[in-house]
Amino acid sequence: MPTLVHTPRELRAACDAFRARGERVGLVPTMGALHEGHMSLVAAARNAGAQRVAVSIFVNPLQFAPTEDLAKYPRTLPEDLARCDAHRVDVVYVPSALDMYPPGFQTHVEVEQVTRVLEGATRPAHFRGVTTVVAKLFNAAGPCVAAFGQKDYQQWRTIERMVRDLDMPVNVLGCAIAREPDGLAMSSRNRYLNPDERARAVAIYAGISAANEAFGRGERAVGTLTTLASRPIAAAFDSIDYVAIADAADLTDRQVEAGEQAVMLVAARIGKTRLIDNARLGERLVIG
Amino acid sequence: MPTLVHTPRELRAACDAFRARGERVGLVPTMGALHEGHMSLVAAARNAGAQRVAVSIFVNPLQFAPTEDLAKYPRTLPEDLARCDAHRVDVVYVPSALDMYPPGFQTHVEVEQVTRVLEGATRPAHFRGVTTVVAKLFNAAGPCVAAFGQKDYQQWRTIERMVRDLDMPVNVLGCAIAREPDGLAMSSRNRYLNPDERARAVAIYAGISAANEAFGRGERAVGTLTTLASRPIAAAFDSIDYVAIADAADLTDRQVEAGEQAVMLVAARIGKTRLIDNARLGERLVIG
Repeated sequence: MPTLVHTPRELRAACDAFRARGERVGLVPTMGALHEGHMSLVAAARNAGAQRVAVSIFVNPLQFAPTEDLAKYPRTLPEDLARCDAHRVDVVYVPSALDMYPPGFQTHVEVEQVTRVLEGATRPAHFRGVTTVVAKLFNAAGPCVAAFGQKDYQQWRTIERMVRDLDMPVNVLGCAIAREPDGLAMSSRNRYLNPDERARAVAIYAGISAANEAFGRGERAVGTLTTLASRPIAAAFDSIDYVAIADAADLTDRQVEAGEQAVMLVAARIGKTRLIDNARLGERLVIG
Repeated sequence: MPTLVHTPRELRAACDAFRARGERVGLVPTMGALHEGHMSLVAAARNAGAQRVAVSIFVNPLQFAPTEDLAKYPRTLPEDLARCDAHRVDVVYVPSALDMYPPGFQTHVEVEQVTRVLEGATRPAHFRGVTTVVAKLFNAAGPCVAAFGQKDYQQWRTIERMVRDLDMPVNVLGCAIAREPDGLAMSSRNRYLNPDERARAVAIYAGISAANEAFGRGERAVGTLTTLASRPIAAAFDSIDYVAIADAADLTDRQVEAGEQAVMLVAARIGKTRLIDNARLGERLVIG
């Protein structure tokens, strides 16, 4: 079984011990409810040279708005630990909210421009909560390779920016989205879907694929591409938060023409569940 | 001569090399215009176990308001290097503004409550600039003992808070104020004073000393203590920004009664120069 640690100090001690033996540390920050997408991050950290991998599991209250699903977010620690064990994870870091935010806590890390659009436009404190907790994880873990899923594309770009701007000794990996056999992006929130919603949820993949195919045939008009993507999603979902095309690096608008460095991003609601997905235009969407 | 480094990467390489030999690293963040107060921080880092000391010299634009003295802030690099050499400093880190804030930079670290009062009340973005640059210095240096002067009392408390809140592997030292023979707190900004202003500037020390003596005789009324301190300062300075008594740990108001854990803080202007000073009530003010 992986070593279980609960405080920043314990995580640091574990990672320092690895480094003292010349082993590089990989870090996979998660909110638990682990699925094979998370496990692909463990593999990615190893591929990038980490001999030891720590997975953190913390449902971070700072990144949920009062109206969001903090209370009902799935918590599956025994299954998570078994999954980490099966993938030979070395350390699992499970801090309590009090370990992370003791009384008097008052510090935040904020990345400004890249967090203002898309997810940040409708979830104003979300990314500030993400960067604050990830900065704490990085500081506690020490120099490491940290793997994030590109499913949370804007989060990945935000963390990359934070690391660069704050001179953190972290190599940030952005890993390909893991998809179910029908194309649905793996997500802990997929557990919220009833069978009917689950069947309809594939429409996001269908919409993005349609836009990407049109892009491959030479279509460059943003309006046409987003309309192509929106059609199946609008039919299957209850509402669309956004279907957008943005610069793949800084997420600024790509108004005029979608070029090679463009990403299509989608957020939509089905029942009480909000799902997101994305793809680089011009790259093949890989399943399985 | 100390090794001169200019980029975060170079600083990290130098500090990593020390640690690889089992040597602990001390860090003394400064804005240059070094004086013996700074050198007492070098000594404090060594006393706390650092075998190697790095001094950073960076006039941080992020912590100056447009109306403040960024452009005229004293820059004395040759003298600073000579002083570091005389004190056997191992590394001097002199980044450019472009090294620290390359195009696209957009991340800030903010400590909230403790920065809202006193200096923060009149200098709204100041501490955000301080914590951002100090976070960058800590991340680049890696695990270290970092020495700060208590002359910038609120800054010291703010950085302590940041380190604790963000789980940074840094031991923050708050070092006693170094004073000139007449009691004036050493400060790079003392260079701005003409001989007449320099003579009058001692009034801050006189005011704080008067309050502290009254405290020693049992006086506990905040109004009486601040009035005692203000009288000589008002006579010698052109204006007083604040004469305050605050909780020594979190800097909240101590309205009713000044207890053992209270600090008196002063900011006042003489000519075009703004000076600050402070003392724990009940502790002897040490000169020389």
